[in-house]
Amino acid sequence: MVLQSNISNPCNKKCKSQFHGGTEARKKELIHVKNPHLERMPCDTLYHIHLGTEYQDLQALFGDIKFVCMGGTPARMKEFAHFIKNEIGYIPPYGTTLEDISKLGHRYSMFKVGPVLSVSHGMGVPSIGILLHEMIKLMYHAQVKDPVFFRIGTCGGIGIEGGNIVITSEALNGYGEPNFDLPVLGKKMSRPAKLDSNLAMDLKNLTLPEDPWDTTIGKTMCADDFYEGQGRLDGAFCEYSEADKIAYLTKLHKNGVRNIEMEAVIFGALTHHAGIRAAIVCVTLLNRLNGDQINSTREERDEWQARPQKLVSRYIKNQLNLSS
Amino acid sequence: MVLQSNISNPCNKKCKSQFHGGTEARKKELIHVKNPHLERMPCDTLYHIHLGTEYQDLQALFGDIKFVCMGGTPARMKEFAHFIKNEIGYIPPYGTTLEDISKLGHRYSMFKVGPVLSVSHGMGVPSIGILLHEMIKLMYHAQVKDPVFFRIGTCGGIGIEGGNIVITSEALNGYGEPNFDLPVLGKKMSRPAKLDSNLAMDLKNLTLPEDPWDTTIGKTMCADDFYEGQGRLDGAFCEYSEADKIAYLTKLHKNGVRNIEMEAVIFGALTHHAGIRAAIVCVTLLNRLNGDQINSTREERDEWQARPQKLVSRYIKNQLNLSS
Repeated sequence: MVLQSNISNPCNKKCKSQFHGGTEARKKELIHVKNPHLERMPCDTLYHIHLGTEYQDLQALFGDIKFVCMGGTPARMKEFAHFIKNEIGYIPPYGTTLEDISKLGHRYSMFKVGPVLSVSHGMGVPSIGILLHEMIKLMYHAQVKDPVFFRIGTCGGIGIEGGNIVITSEALNGYGEPNFDLPVLGKKMSRPAKLDSNLAMDLKNLTLPEDPWDTTIGKTMCADDFYEGQGRLDGAFCEYSEADKIAYLTKLHKNGVRNIEMEAVIFGALTHHAGIRAAIVCVTLLNRLNGDQINSTREERDEWQARPQKLVSRYIKNQLNLSS
Repeated sequence: MVLQSNISNPCNKKCKSQFHGGTEARKKELIHVKNPHLERMPCDTLYHIHLGTEYQDLQALFGDIKFVCMGGTPARMKEFAHFIKNEIGYIPPYGTTLEDISKLGHRYSMFKVGPVLSVSHGMGVPSIGILLHEMIKLMYHAQVKDPVFFRIGTCGGIGIEGGNIVITSEALNGYGEPNFDLPVLGKKMSRPAKLDSNLAMDLKNLTLPEDPWDTTIGKTMCADDFYEGQGRLDGAFCEYSEADKIAYLTKLHKNGVRNIEMEAVIFGALTHHAGIRAAIVCVTLLNRLNGDQINSTREERDEWQARPQKLVSRYIKNQLNLSS
């Protein structure tokens, strides 16, 4: 299969971003967009994050990025942006405040805090998948070197009570395989879902004795559904018994799975494929061996959801030589 | 497998909603939540839409619902809510306005306009899947009879230019099969993805000669990805040629597929499984046989996105005997 591109030029304009080509040395330092068509495109619209090369110099705007932090909801990622702003001492000019860069795309929220991007990804593999493609291309267009990607999320614990942190050692799909599978042109394409083990250990080692949570490194099962796909009994449909559910979750636990969420396999697969170091840091909302419904109070959940943010913040501050 | 439930009572409270049990005759009229555990749960928290039976009488609040309209973004569904409000002549009390019922869930936006619910679903099968489980349970708890569900969306056309409407006759997954597949307890569960053909025809017949769009009933391919999963050449990765892409899209077209989007199979599967009449009405943003990037202006897209809303509104007004 010859990977030549005959893509016609749809805009006939000179793009503001200069991303075409580049020396081999430069290409080696940068992340891997394994797409020969991309370099031949005159412009690239990152549609869902509302950015593009035609009208924006993405290297000027994002070239200083070192950390990309993703989480499910716009509210949480706005909160994280303001939290990290205080943590790293980023002071925007007087009279300004952080703004949602992707607001007019209506899908994701993105905030830039100096070298940190805080972005919401929605729920599920397809939603975060679109964002990952566009963020990876953004890093490419901005010529960012060696960014670190984090997913800061929530999850169901398996044998772990609510309020504790699980860092993903390996992401498994719903069939227990460490792959992200996707039909492409009608046929199954499979990519290994790998996270950076050194990064996981570095994060775990930042947990302090006085922290009101435990941090575990364990396997993560990535489901495509919140209810039946996670063995819950409280969906609109359920064709198995509670005993079946417990047997399944117990089997997962014996296999080293410590939490279930809905984005891990593609997060691992696409960052790995791009050569980007990445980690998933989630707080458990409940222990699934004890139930399905999330019965914590909003105050508890708010405090718990801040815990992975604190851990990732410590890492970022270390890397920026800002630790107190 | 004996489907008995021994779920313990987590809240020990008497729920405000009285959804437990019911006569056989009542059960026959209502939608099918095929989950024997549900009736034995003392309370049900619809976590992501921020509703629940413990503190709310869902029948009193939602018992009058006849139509549930879903679309991708909160902005679009808020716009649709205000549009349908004017179309059906729903006048809230002076000094009030529509409010996002699910705001504090931070995932979806939901607006109630008399007998119409307008809800955002995010992107992709898992995201709309969570919503569908909770909306179907909501209809059950509210004892709604024979609601009609619509997905009002955007899509890529295949052989159809931007700005035209495709109503889904059949939803196909990425392998070309008319099924929604999901790993449940580690094994593949498959449900047929069916839409209501009479409803599709009723909608098509509401297209007027003066409408600036064509309406086609055709098959819809539901992808789990916006880029490689839809044969695009402009993702962060691409391992096939433009010729491969065109061959694939042409094959889809020959098989009767007229559009590609990202929610159809689960929308068809879960509504069908619940006995709910449902239709998917999408406007094309581009003809994928001519390109991948969405190059229309925002004004064009805004006007196009109103087109499925208008068609569904005509149906709703007919059903409410409100057509002028």
